[in-house]
Amino acid sequence: MKMLINVPETVVADALRGMAVAHPELAVDVENRVVVRRDAPVPGKVALVSGGGSGHEPLHAGFVGRGMLDAACPGEVFTSPVPDQMVRAAAAVDSGRGVLFVVKNYTGDVLNFDMAAELAEDEGVQVAKVLVNDDVAVVDSLYTAGRRGTGATLFVEKIAGALAEEGAPLEAVQAVARRVNESSRSFGVALGACTTPAKGGPTFDLPPGELELGIGIHGEPGRERRPMMTSGEIADFAVDAVLDDLAPDSPVIVLVNGMGATPLLELYGFAAEVQRALGARGTAVARTLVGNYVTSLDMPGASVTVCEVDEELLRLWDAPVCTPGLRWGC
Amino acid sequence: MKMLINVPETVVADALRGMAVAHPELAVDVENRVVVRRDAPVPGKVALVSGGGSGHEPLHAGFVGRGMLDAACPGEVFTSPVPDQMVRAAAAVDSGRGVLFVVKNYTGDVLNFDMAAELAEDEGVQVAKVLVNDDVAVVDSLYTAGRRGTGATLFVEKIAGALAEEGAPLEAVQAVARRVNESSRSFGVALGACTTPAKGGPTFDLPPGELELGIGIHGEPGRERRPMMTSGEIADFAVDAVLDDLAPDSPVIVLVNGMGATPLLELYGFAAEVQRALGARGTAVARTLVGNYVTSLDMPGASVTVCEVDEELLRLWDAPVCTPGLRWGC
Repeated sequence: MKMLINVPETVVADALRGMAVAHPELAVDVENRVVVRRDAPVPGKVALVSGGGSGHEPLHAGFVGRGMLDAACPGEVFTSPVPDQMVRAAAAVDSGRGVLFVVKNYTGDVLNFDMAAELAEDEGVQVAKVLVNDDVAVVDSLYTAGRRGTGATLFVEKIAGALAEEGAPLEAVQAVARRVNESSRSFGVALGACTTPAKGGPTFDLPPGELELGIGIHGEPGRERRPMMTSGEIADFAVDAVLDDLAPDSPVIVLVNGMGATPLLELYGFAAEVQRALGARGTAVARTLVGNYVTSLDMPGASVTVCEVDEELLRLWDAPVCTPGLRWGC
Repeated sequence: MKMLINVPETVVADALRGMAVAHPELAVDVENRVVVRRDAPVPGKVALVSGGGSGHEPLHAGFVGRGMLDAACPGEVFTSPVPDQMVRAAAAVDSGRGVLFVVKNYTGDVLNFDMAAELAEDEGVQVAKVLVNDDVAVVDSLYTAGRRGTGATLFVEKIAGALAEEGAPLEAVQAVARRVNESSRSFGVALGACTTPAKGGPTFDLPPGELELGIGIHGEPGRERRPMMTSGEIADFAVDAVLDDLAPDSPVIVLVNGMGATPLLELYGFAAEVQRALGARGTAVARTLVGNYVTSLDMPGASVTVCEVDEELLRLWDAPVCTPGLRWGC
């Protein structure tokens, strides 16, 4: 497989150099792999730190900025960052009011953020954590014990980030983050595999004419493979999977997320089918976000994430956010 | 090839239905295929209208909003919109101060916008045009007489849109649009072909291990094919091609644009190499924008566009823009 890279070994460092060029509002530490708001620590504000394997851009470094994350720690492609990165990030952004670690539920991330939390506490930083595990497709997969964390990460980072921006204490920021995670469910499909730089070829084989229902964001197996379906059929399947697990009474925010190689033209068409499928099941939609936000390198496919919201969560969703990957109100 | 669609015939209409769901701030006329700012016509403002074949999203409909376009007319995939769409759009957004048509230099677009200009003038709308032809790769290709219009379209729409927002007259908005086009050059590469819904397969064949230098945004042939190159080598080739034709004395704005299926991780790494290549040739960079903006469905590859700017153009670039695809300051 051809890739727009120099050598696989420098892909993450090269990308961070490019982020530094494109986003002078971020402090990008290429050597130590930490991306920080240039105005951090923000006095009186609880800080949010996340991180995970690279290859899911703009998640997480693209969500650093006012109203979302204070810092992100990119690991190697599809590989957890190390505790040193997280401790360094926490120290750089802590204003004295504490740090919330936003952790997607993958074994490596969980272990390393746990270790980092202990190390940061030893250095006098108060740390709280939220685990994101929204993917209803499978339990206990290749990378995870329990459910995987996928699209809800964006909801958690956005909404908890907005509350932190208002000066809320660490316990409240953690509580709203947990509430967002518990109110969110995701389901993804792949029409093909992605290609990691290190492997240089597809991460799995998917026969022509078939799709994988319930794909993970690292190409982990889903629930089943079927002959190719239409956009409308896929939307029905994904929405059924999500609503079987959530059954919302209130309106939802919807993320129709591209996995990387699916054209925006197709994603918007899929969003129309998701809207239809939700409406047919009696679920009201308050907001819809369409685009490539939690990606899997060059994987063709899409995921649907819904988050049940009340007025408070919707107000925090609508609050200003100023990051490379998500931006409004500033 | 698998696609996330219902049937090829409804791809554009389906996408417009999805745009309407995700962007209530736009008035999306699915039947007539016109996307308009909901607050149009804006009193006292010159209106900008663009359009072209679908498959290049977010261009153009994703650039409708304050500070950029007042309306966009999406054609079928890789096919010019028809004059009726453009006339309807012009009538919907004209405040009485006239309309600027932003036209990429492809034969069908040029003919249809010319015809639409005549028809709109007959209806009492004052129309001016700007032709975008920034691609230095080839002259007279499959879709075009002269140079193709590609990435500079974003610069033209953004900068002329900002001037229109300030209340400038039609002649001034047209003049700045022309100046931006004349100050811009682009060069693109493909690592593979894109797949159109109608064809259902690759639009061209590119052997494994080769790339196409100078690709068009519809997969039109470029200058040459070569064995696969590194990101740094591609950046040097593209920057040489651009600077051979422009030789800027002032700083430039740079667009490092993904063609659709190239991961953001790779695009950022490529942006770092473009920055290095420009610096090595003595060209100062004022701003860098990285992302998928002028795409070719699911084509893997990237393009580089530079626009030489003075203080006025840079001020207009930095002015607020509130569209689904490009957004800051609001």
